[in-house]
Parts: sequence; C-alpha cells; structure tokens
Amino acid sequence: RVNGDRLWDSLMEMARIGPGVAGGNNRQTLTDADGEGRHLFKTWCDEAGLTMGVDKMGTMFMTRPGTDPDALPVYVGSHLDTQPTGGKFDGVLGVLSALEVVRSMNDLGIKTRHPIVVTNWANEEGARFAPAMLASGVFAGVHTLDYAYDRKDPEGKTYGEELKRIGWQGDEEVGARKMHAYFEYHIEQGPILEAEEKQIGVVTHCQGLWWLEFTLTGREAHTGSTPMAMRVNAGLAMSRIMEMVQTVAMENQPGAVGGVGQVFFSPNSRNVLPGKVVFTVDIRTPDLAKLNAMRARIEKEAAAICEALGVGCSVEAVGHFDPVTFDPVLVERVRKAAERLGYSHMNIISGAGHDACWAAKVAPATMVMCPCVGGLSHNEAEDISREWAAAGADVLFHAVLETAEI
Amino acid sequence: RVNGDRLWDSLMEMARIGPGVAGGNNRQTLTDADGEGRHLFKTWCDEAGLTMGVDKMGTMFMTRPGTDPDALPVYVGSHLDTQPTGGKFDGVLGVLSALEVVRSMNDLGIKTRHPIVVTNWANEEGARFAPAMLASGVFAGVHTLDYAYDRKDPEGKTYGEELKRIGWQGDEEVGARKMHAYFEYHIEQGPILEAEEKQIGVVTHCQGLWWLEFTLTGREAHTGSTPMAMRVNAGLAMSRIMEMVQTVAMENQPGAVGGVGQVFFSPNSRNVLPGKVVFTVDIRTPDLAKLNAMRARIEKEAAAICEALGVGCSVEAVGHFDPVTFDPVLVERVRKAAERLGYSHMNIISGAGHDACWAAKVAPATMVMCPCVGGLSHNEAEDISREWAAAGADVLFHAVLETAEI
Ligand SMILES: NC(=O)NCCC(=O)O
Ligand SMILES: NC(=O)NCCC(=O)O
Repeated sequence: RVNGDRLWDSLMEMARIGPGVAGGNNRQTLTDADGEGRHLFKTWCDEAGLTMGVDKMGTMFMTRPGTDPDALPVYVGSHLDTQPTGGKFDGVLGVLSALEVVRSMNDLGIKTRHPIVVTNWANEEGARFAPAMLASGVFAGVHTLDYAYDRKDPEGKTYGEELKRIGWQGDEEVGARKMHAYFEYHIEQGPILEAEEKQIGVVTHCQGLWWLEFTLTGREAHTGSTPMAMRVNAGLAMSRIMEMVQTVAMENQPGAVGGVGQVFFSPNSRNVLPGKVVFTVDIRTPDLAKLNAMRARIEKEAAAICEALGVGCSVEAVGHFDPVTFDPVLVERVRKAAERLGYSHMNIISGAGHDACWAAKVAPATMVMCPCVGGLSHNEAEDISREWAAAGADVLFHAVLETAEI
Repeated sequence: RVNGDRLWDSLMEMARIGPGVAGGNNRQTLTDADGEGRHLFKTWCDEAGLTMGVDKMGTMFMTRPGTDPDALPVYVGSHLDTQPTGGKFDGVLGVLSALEVVRSMNDLGIKTRHPIVVTNWANEEGARFAPAMLASGVFAGVHTLDYAYDRKDPEGKTYGEELKRIGWQGDEEVGARKMHAYFEYHIEQGPILEAEEKQIGVVTHCQGLWWLEFTLTGREAHTGSTPMAMRVNAGLAMSRIMEMVQTVAMENQPGAVGGVGQVFFSPNSRNVLPGKVVFTVDIRTPDLAKLNAMRARIEKEAAAICEALGVGCSVEAVGHFDPVTFDPVLVERVRKAAERLGYSHMNIISGAGHDACWAAKVAPATMVMCPCVGGLSHNEAEDISREWAAAGADVLFHAVLETAEI
C-alpha cells in the first residue's frame, strides 16, 4: 500500500499555491501560480530521483528508469492546473498519486522492467484556453502545435506567449514519446460512487463532448427608446437557445447532459440591447450517434430561433472528443487490484473529459476513480476524504506495478 | 437662427476624443477621455466668455451673466459622457447646442435678463456607474452624495475615487443652485420622428423606468459529470427570466418595453455551471401604474422560476424614475418656436431617461428632440443630419431666448 498520509500532506501543500477565495484553488494554466506549482512538483520529483523532460506544450514528464533498456515506459499522471474556482483534488490527486506510487516503490526498493513516467499534462481544464486537454490532444496528434499555440484567453493572450512567459516551454517534440500504457487516477466529479457507497470506480468508458461556441449578432440599441417590434435582440435569442439545449438534454435521458457555463454580452451595458452575444454550449453522452444527433438538432433549432428574431447566428466547435472505450486488459487489471486490496468497486463511465481520453488514442489506457463529496467538482468546495484518496492510490499502485512488471 | 455649421464642426471635433471602434465614441464617465472632453468644452466656454462652476459631483455649470442681478438663471444642457459603444450625438448634441445658443447670442449682441448656464451633467449614461442620470439625481435630491460616491464600476472602482482621479471634483454643494427653468435638447434615440417625417419632437413626457438587478445563486458544478437532475442551474433560471420579461413587455403593449443589456456569469468557465449569475432587467412605460405592475409581476414570476429550479434569487432596484410630465408653459414655448421657425413638429414621449427628468423635480423643465437615422442610438452607428441638428438648435435658441427674456 502507498503512504496515504504523505499523499495527503502533498495534496495540502500543493493547495497552498494559487489559493481560491473559498478554500479551493485558482491555479489556472500558464499563470504565475501554475509556474509555482510546477516548481514545487519538480522539487518533489527531484527528491524522488526522477529526471525531467518537458515538451513544447509544457507537459512535464518525470522518469523513474526501468531495468530493461528496450522497455517502453508506463505513463501515470493527470494535471496540476485548476478551474478559476476549482477544488484541491481535480487533477492534482492524479499527479501526486503517481508521484506517491514512485515514492512507495523507492521506499520498498522495488525495481520495474518498464520505466515509470509521472506526468503533469498542461492545460487540462481548458478554462483559460479552450479546448480542454489541450497538451494531451497535441500529444495524440488531434491538434497541431500551431493550433495550440494560437489559442487565446479572454484577454487575448495566446497559449504560446504565456507558456514562454512562465518559462515552461520545453524542447521535446510533442508526441515523440511512445507509451507502453497510460494510467490516470481522478476524482469522479459526479455523484455515483458516493451514492453507491463504492470506494473505487473502474472506468470503462468516457462520454464524448461537443463545445459549441455560438456568436449571435443582434443590433445594439437603446433599451428604453427602441420599440419591441424594432429590436434585433441577441440576448433573447441566447435565452431561447439555452432553454432549447435543456430540452434536448432532457429528451435524451438517460445518459446525456447539456448546459452553458460561459456567456459574454457586448457591450454589456444595462441600457444597451447587446449587439453581440458569445456563449458556449457543452453537451455530452457516452453514445456517439446520440452525441452527434444532439449537436445537429441544437444547431438546427438554434438557427431557427435566431432566424425568427432576425439575429445572426454562427457556431464554432471549440472542443470535441468522441466517446472513449478504455483498454479492456488495463480495466481488468484495475478491477483485480481493487479486489485484491479489498476495496468495494463498480464500473463507471467518466462524465468529464480527461487526458486519458487522448492518451487512449496512442496507447492502452485506463483510469481509476474515487468518490467526491456530493458529486461536487469545478467548485471550491470540492472535497474527498483522506481514506478515499489513499484507496485509489493503492489501486493505481497495484495496477501500475503489474503493468510495469517487477 | 444659430450657426449650424459651427455647431456641426464642434460636434465633429468633440467626437475625436474617446473614439470608438466603429466610427462612434467610447468616452465613458470619469475616464481619461471624459476628462479630455471636459477640457475641450471648457476651452470653448472660455472663448465664449462663460465662467465655470463645478459641483462635488463633477457637473460643469458655465455661466453667461444676465442683466438682472436678482434673476435666476436659465439652465440649458445635457451630457458629454457616452456609452462604451456610443454615438457622437447622444448627449453631446444638447451640450454643444446650448453652447451654440450662447455663441449665437454673443454674435448677435443679445443680452438677457436671466443668466444662461450651459450645463454638462456628469454620468448621465449610467453605463460605468449605475444608475443613469446620477449627478442630476443628486442635484434634485433623489440620491445623496455619499450614495453617488459609493457607486462602483465593474472593476470595483468608485465614483468618488474616479472623479478625484480625473481632477473634476468641484467644491460647489450639489443642488445649491436654483433654476428659473431647464431646457435639454437631445436626439430622439427612437424611430418615431423619422417615420413621421417631423423635424422637431415637442417632448411632453418621459416614460418611467426600473432597473432590476437580479443575483441568482446556483451551485457551481461540472458541466459533464453532474447529472441533469442534480443541477442547480442559475444560467437556466436567467434564460427563463429573460423570456418572461419579453412576455411581460409584449403583454403590456402598446407603450411598454423590457429587456436585458448586462449579464455576468461566474466563474464564467465553459465547463462549470455558474454558481452566480447577475443581470439587469430594464423595463419602461409612460404609465406609472403599469410600470409598477410590470415590476411586481416580473419579481413574482422570477421568484417562482428560481424556486422551481432550486436557485436563489435576490433583486435590487439599481435605477428608477417615475414617468415625468414636462412643464406645460415651456412645452408650449418649444412648440411655438418650431412653428415660428417653420419646422415640422409633433408631440413625443421620451423613451430614454434624461437629466431633464430629474431637473423637472426642482424647476420648470422641458426638452426638444430631433430625429436620428433608423431610430438607432447606444450604437456607434448612431447618426443625424447637419440640418436636423441645426433645426433643433434653432428651436432651443428661440425657446431659451423667450424664457431668459431679452
Ligand atoms: N476533468 C475535468 O474536469 N476536465 C476538464 C474537461 C472537461 O470539461 O471534462
Ligand atoms: N438618453 C440616455 O440614453 N440616457 C441614459 C439613461 C437611459 O437608459 O435612458
């Protein structure tokens, strides 16, 4: 078993960097706080005897050598970046548990045939720069490096500029590394494991996603002196599209979600009808055909809503991944590890996207999950227990050991 | 008649300060550009022989003396501040036409019994600091000075701090001045005069307004892993309230409007359901009972919408004025001036709020309006013709002369 107290202490120490306003974290990608978090993580990796490689996207690969010079490494990781009002565990648990796995191997003097690479993927959250899982996406050949470098935050700063600014642009070609396998341990971010009173989620699939960024064009006009009949009201069109997305999600139950997290009104003045409204619809389901049908229906109905109001409507897909099926051999290895360790477990489909989804394109991959209180995540109040954290890390330890071969 | 070319040249020169991005202006209250605009205006007033007084709200009073030391001044003005994406004429036309009135009096060697005070009210727009017509509201005793100083812009800067920063905090007590009468000339900001092919709007009333700022409290949660049934979706509640406001406005036709110009989502991240949504509903109608009934219905139905979704709902009235009836004697004087000058005219109710609405609380007051192209305002494309501008200024000149007594 891993050292659950050491894992917890590291989680709490990392959480001091980029504190939020309500007990959580704001350590968004490529901010100074992200840089600081990376340095702390590197210090810990140095102490554990790992050697660092950094790729051109800023992903950190911390290697513990194996005994067979020809054996490809087993990658184990997640991300240290957070949402603007994020929790202390989303992503961080996976990175620091991977570190805890090698710390435990060091303690026990365990050598493996395959090297182990503790991995901190850059910009998993996609909060500052859409899409999410950007660096692992470039790694898997889904995006080009140029595309990634050109992503802009709401202030117009690009990924490429900000990566240089914080000093974490490495020189490794992105995706040049080959993986024997990829493991990621993450909090569930949903309510199922807690409700079912299971310690371990054996993650068989991940649902697919579309982020549809709508740009609606109305006519800026005075809210007082513009008669109702003369309005070209982009805000009203947005409200109708939001309601329609809710309907589409509800009509695709069970196993589908849809919502809006981000809205920009322009000029955003109380007495000006907006000339421009930009907002992003997030839809997900594990069923590929359903996912694409939801997208098609939303785009079609949105166009009709806008047409009826005379509002211009354009849609750009700013994030996407198809549903993922994880590697059955690794999935089974996770289940067996949970059984061997005596932890209650169940199969689960990941509701959120993870770097494992892109890694699965280039290597056998899977995930381990632990419950989180009230299913809450992307909220500073996100919480897990020390025991939940340790149980998942134990399962990760066993599954990684078996894959890396003692 | 006034010098229409000089008026137009001054309008165009002022429009160079705080240019917008699409041919209009962004000269918001208490910005550096506002300070610059004030200096240019002061230079022109100096040249016209006016003496300046500035009150503690930053309103500029530029006096042309009268012949009778006991006669109260006739105030003529509007505002030089603009919306973030404002036009070149909204407000500015009124201030520079008032200046043109005294320039024309100077040219013609006209002396009046009552002094004339060309007035530039501070923060009419309310775009940066709600409510609108803030300085005239303090002048009329509707708000206290402390209340006004504490108003915050979206960045958290206060009116008091920003007024000091740009160097335009005067020492006159606000509202200490007594007025013989108040005149304001303004573009219509609506489509009626143009549609009816009238050069002059004789403004008999102004419709009343409520700005209702809603703060909705949901639960921040992951857009992917949070099942539909577990969501406390403040954004969805907002969209339903927007649709309901539209319904309430439509059911109160004719003569009522309702809409939303400003929305803030928090944390405003694509994959986080908003924990907090703040937006402002703007409703108006000339009928006081209807106005208050609309407000009551909107608050009641919003509460029900939020309750059904488990969303917290609080409402603050951040702007308000009752419908106004302008002084019948002055109104008649405007009409007679238009007739005498041979301009086509009609009675009109102002759809927008104006400093004249607050001035009307402390003095006989009225307004003159000219058409604007397509009824468009609060839009950089706002436009009027040189002839329209001059016609209204001529009417203003005559009505002011009659009131100030030659
Ligand atoms: N795990 C996680 O929150 N990832 C961010 C991408 C997503 O929205 O699913
Ligand atoms: N005239 C004008 O646009 N005033 C701003 C206050 C309002 O919204 O009516």
